[in-house]
Amino acid sequence: MPIMDSKKGKIVKEYSIEELKKQAAEMRAWNLASLCAAGSGHSGGTLSIMDITAALYLKIINHDPKNPDWDERDRVIWSTGHKAPALYTGLAFSGYFGKKECLKLRKLWGSFEGHPNRLKLKGVEASSGSLGQGLSIAVGSAIRAKADKKNYRVFCIMGDGEQQEGQVWEAALEAAHFKLDNLIGIIDENQLQIDGFVKDIMNVFPLADKYRAFGWHVIETDGHDMAQIVDAFKKAFSLKEKPIMIIAKTVKGKGVSFMENIAGWHGKVPSIEETKKAFAELKVNLNLEELLDYAQDYQKEVEKKIEKSMPKFSKDYWWNKQANMKAKMEPTRMGFGNCLQKKGDDKRLFCLGADTASSIRISGFYEKNPERKERWCSMGISEQSGTCVAAGLAKEGKISVFGTYATFASGRALDQLRTTVCYNNYNVKIAGAHGGVSVGPDGATHQALEDFFQTCSLPNMKVIAPADSIETERLCNTCFFEIDGPVYARFAREATPIVTTPDTPLKFGTANIIRYKGEKENFADAFETTLATEYKSQGEDIAIVSNGPETAEAMRAAWILKEEFGIETRIINMHTMKPFDKETIIKAAKECGTILTAEEHQIGGIGNYVASAILLGNIGKPVAFDMIGVKDEFGLSGAPWELVKAFGLTAEHIAEKAKKMIKSAKI
Amino acid sequence: MPIMDSKKGKIVKEYSIEELKKQAAEMRAWNLASLCAAGSGHSGGTLSIMDITAALYLKIINHDPKNPDWDERDRVIWSTGHKAPALYTGLAFSGYFGKKECLKLRKLWGSFEGHPNRLKLKGVEASSGSLGQGLSIAVGSAIRAKADKKNYRVFCIMGDGEQQEGQVWEAALEAAHFKLDNLIGIIDENQLQIDGFVKDIMNVFPLADKYRAFGWHVIETDGHDMAQIVDAFKKAFSLKEKPIMIIAKTVKGKGVSFMENIAGWHGKVPSIEETKKAFAELKVNLNLEELLDYAQDYQKEVEKKIEKSMPKFSKDYWWNKQANMKAKMEPTRMGFGNCLQKKGDDKRLFCLGADTASSIRISGFYEKNPERKERWCSMGISEQSGTCVAAGLAKEGKISVFGTYATFASGRALDQLRTTVCYNNYNVKIAGAHGGVSVGPDGATHQALEDFFQTCSLPNMKVIAPADSIETERLCNTCFFEIDGPVYARFAREATPIVTTPDTPLKFGTANIIRYKGEKENFADAFETTLATEYKSQGEDIAIVSNGPETAEAMRAAWILKEEFGIETRIINMHTMKPFDKETIIKAAKECGTILTAEEHQIGGIGNYVASAILLGNIGKPVAFDMIGVKDEFGLSGAPWELVKAFGLTAEHIAEKAKKMIKSAKI
Repeated sequence: MPIMDSKKGKIVKEYSIEELKKQAAEMRAWNLASLCAAGSGHSGGTLSIMDITAALYLKIINHDPKNPDWDERDRVIWSTGHKAPALYTGLAFSGYFGKKECLKLRKLWGSFEGHPNRLKLKGVEASSGSLGQGLSIAVGSAIRAKADKKNYRVFCIMGDGEQQEGQVWEAALEAAHFKLDNLIGIIDENQLQIDGFVKDIMNVFPLADKYRAFGWHVIETDGHDMAQIVDAFKKAFSLKEKPIMIIAKTVKGKGVSFMENIAGWHGKVPSIEETKKAFAELKVNLNLEELLDYAQDYQKEVEKKIEKSMPKFSKDYWWNKQANMKAKMEPTRMGFGNCLQKKGDDKRLFCLGADTASSIRISGFYEKNPERKERWCSMGISEQSGTCVAAGLAKEGKISVFGTYATFASGRALDQLRTTVCYNNYNVKIAGAHGGVSVGPDGATHQALEDFFQTCSLPNMKVIAPADSIETERLCNTCFFEIDGPVYARFAREATPIVTTPDTPLKFGTANIIRYKGEKENFADAFETTLATEYKSQGEDIAIVSNGPETAEAMRAAWILKEEFGIETRIINMHTMKPFDKETIIKAAKECGTILTAEEHQIGGIGNYVASAILLGNIGKPVAFDMIGVKDEFGLSGAPWELVKAFGLTAEHIAEKAKKMIKSAKI
Repeated sequence: MPIMDSKKGKIVKEYSIEELKKQAAEMRAWNLASLCAAGSGHSGGTLSIMDITAALYLKIINHDPKNPDWDERDRVIWSTGHKAPALYTGLAFSGYFGKKECLKLRKLWGSFEGHPNRLKLKGVEASSGSLGQGLSIAVGSAIRAKADKKNYRVFCIMGDGEQQEGQVWEAALEAAHFKLDNLIGIIDENQLQIDGFVKDIMNVFPLADKYRAFGWHVIETDGHDMAQIVDAFKKAFSLKEKPIMIIAKTVKGKGVSFMENIAGWHGKVPSIEETKKAFAELKVNLNLEELLDYAQDYQKEVEKKIEKSMPKFSKDYWWNKQANMKAKMEPTRMGFGNCLQKKGDDKRLFCLGADTASSIRISGFYEKNPERKERWCSMGISEQSGTCVAAGLAKEGKISVFGTYATFASGRALDQLRTTVCYNNYNVKIAGAHGGVSVGPDGATHQALEDFFQTCSLPNMKVIAPADSIETERLCNTCFFEIDGPVYARFAREATPIVTTPDTPLKFGTANIIRYKGEKENFADAFETTLATEYKSQGEDIAIVSNGPETAEAMRAAWILKEEFGIETRIINMHTMKPFDKETIIKAAKECGTILTAEEHQIGGIGNYVASAILLGNIGKPVAFDMIGVKDEFGLSGAPWELVKAFGLTAEHIAEKAKKMIKSAKI
């Protein structure tokens, strides 16, 4: 049934096939406008699913935008959360909110998160973003309908690459076992995933045979022929006793000539010119400037609000805002790629990808050295098996390097890391990319904030979180080639300041002490770094403990504290989280008496370890202590540095807190 | 090829089919002897796989027991780690070690862990115990063989219930994608899993169609016809281009009439009489008494060693060793079952099982109330999907209760807990059973020691770890029916002392203060419990913070400390880990000045939170602090209380440490 008025029990509007086609074209245009305004996001997949989205929200499902929680409504679970812009467009065109609202896509506090958040937007059935979980949610919803004799149907939109996730097959077994004929799965079979063609990355085809073997009805359809799509759903409604999978053959980037069938457009957005070109191809007449202005106005409000919230000092100490203290920027993940690129000829090395190869820079292993592909496996989107395959290779003497976004690398495969990697003590190196909120617009599901808790707790595991790309390359060299056994390495996505040099003292397991020495032309030159074991106290007022790119913020805080208040800071760069350098913490507690931890992680990830080290050190005098970090909450979509500011993790926040601590310590 | 002398390149022995049958019968007998001696373990599955084990280790695989790391050897990965006794028997009969060694099964420090540990026993290719991971390890090993042009084959033994784990299907895709015809999977299709028949729990049949659809060669065979088994392997060796799955139709408990086809024998062992009956049926003449004596002698050595390591006091304060201070014992998991049994008529409640229903006591929901099965789903062994199905039901207004052993409930499904349960803030209650080393003989893979780190770090999650079965029932009532949103509840397996009553003050989120008041006939009566917010300091010498059954140890320690040294102890029962009652910790730090944490968890799970609470409390004076817990190592097989002693978690250890702290604090 189409859009309903649930109170009156009346159909609001019946769309003809022709009208649906027109709506789909307009939805594509609005979708691209929102992506263009966002400046990041997933174009290819939102276009391949758009005809099905139009059919579902405007004609097929029974729902009432004025009464989104109506219990009789059909449910649509978007398991592929990265297609959120298509979902938002579908909701807007159904009347849940004004179309222009979609222009807030991926902007801070805009409720149009990079991956959908049901708590922020009515009409979103489930928050998603980590692939492979939606079909299970749909199974639960469908079981409830059967149990409570409800007539609603449950739809679940999945990708073809997503079929690589084992959980999908757990859910497939369950749906058949419980005979859920009120469950209709939809696979947007556009043949492409981030790293390339699904058949090359990790072949899942033919899917029809697999679902039939798993006890499903299967309907195959052209995902861009509106009449066929509608017929497919009608046929699905007539099938009984088994769940129904609609496999829709689609084209990634459909409707925009220069995007069609190009993997590169998976996570890329069109420029203003490209968007206009797309409008023309879609024969949709929209005023892009006007839409972008609307987005821009919202963005300006956000920025105003953030700036207002920032601690103020006598001058602007932000990165590269002064004539001196200039910092070069590079993401730490680049250091990981550089390590693999330079050391990749070592025949012991074997690297495995999880459909995020170039994003996390593990592709550095083979990009310039195609011959190394002999020692490379793409595992697709299967973090669990990928982790254990890496272990199987390590078991046979390889140095296995496997990695993906840290939320998945540590969280999705934690039992595999525990039982197969750590309990076996296999020589597996796990790259946890995209640590922290500075991941940016992808939002909470892609921002790892708990991975220290998860990985540091595993026996035999070693954990590093280097401060910049240079330190990352150097620590990876040590951890991959000099240390035997499991290692978890945490990287960041965003370009962050380079604060070390190839000659900076560096020793795995021993913290570095960094001291501000006075302004210089280059930020890094303004600091002196000493291996903690060789450091003599200079009677600093406070010690700040941090790691990863947050160390650069701690350094900038030291600059602010000295210039503004004459406060001397001892920065402890805890680049190795496990083994944890307790001695350096105890020494700092004794010598400085005031300790502040700063982490781009759930608060306590570093802080709790520092606190127990201080107390176990039994130094016999009170220590002023505080922690800066994410306060037990999920991340958000927004620009990387906006988020670092919004979550209170900048040098300005560190300096403000440090100043207060020293003041009250003196009282 | 059979057993080899790798140095001389000679075959050591060729077995005929008839000889193999005889060996298999003897292996069954030795297997049952080791299980009888262990007093726990898995009889059914070790008997169903035994003929294949005999064929593999004595005739099919190419290996040299004198040179276990020989790189040309064939690999056998036991994905079903609980069938370890069959593996051990296979290794013993091949000559890796004397057969009698197997009698050390599941005994402390015996290297014959309840689930195999490759670091302790040569011939074990991979440590396992968490189902669904072995095929991926095998894929990695097989990829290496192809990459390095090695001729060895990789075999992987799996169960049929295990096919419910999605990771198996990730690995199935991978093996086909990489054309691993050097990989031979074996499914021990005995039709039964812990909770019953596989087809009823979560049907996976027919498996042949599924594997063919996933791109495998499939060979079906009678898993108890030795000639057929050998032919199946020979046929497998002739197949190319695809991995090969041998589906062996077997009988659980095969060879012992009273065990055959009975699910109850999955995790049960035979008595001495039953074992002798089995010997007779198997026509194997073994002197059971002699074997049991051998096991008994080893066990006596273990116990002597442990007792020697225990702190000594003027008398024996161990549980129920005195005329007074008697304690009733009941596992905390019983309280969970009682809550569901008593409150199960609440129509909002919907419970889901993960093939551990009666073990974790979630079966209390329906055992006495079969009508409630309408609100019960068995999900099989699929923790990931099960977690999200529970979320899907909660999304539709149900109070979903899902649970299994904590290592799997929190670790295996952590990304699902994070993204689907917590980020959506769904009303899902997760039971994490089998927390701590007191799980006993199952060993490390089944002993949850990191789950506080994993679950407390998740926004929106609440976490409890009740002290006894009564407190468990009461806190479950609160968390399930009065609190909306995700809750993780940690339970223990072993019977532990009941130290509270239904009238003991109890408030979710507020710690309890427990004080020793003098010996009584019943242990629980010797203590006075007050809600922390209402507690007035009695000037105690030390505060001990703990939760779960470790609280009973802390109480016993208070008894020891008072009777032996006149030391007054404030016990803080931190039954709610999240939200964490910081105020009570700060108050104790101010008033007692000496704080000791005691946890049956990796050290810091409670300790780190207490340490940061103390320091953030900024109490302006030094605090003596120490932590007792598992020291960043994996658990072991052994008797529950043996392990609590071996890992230094008893009241005696707490009392000894407390005494030292107070002594040095006074200096």
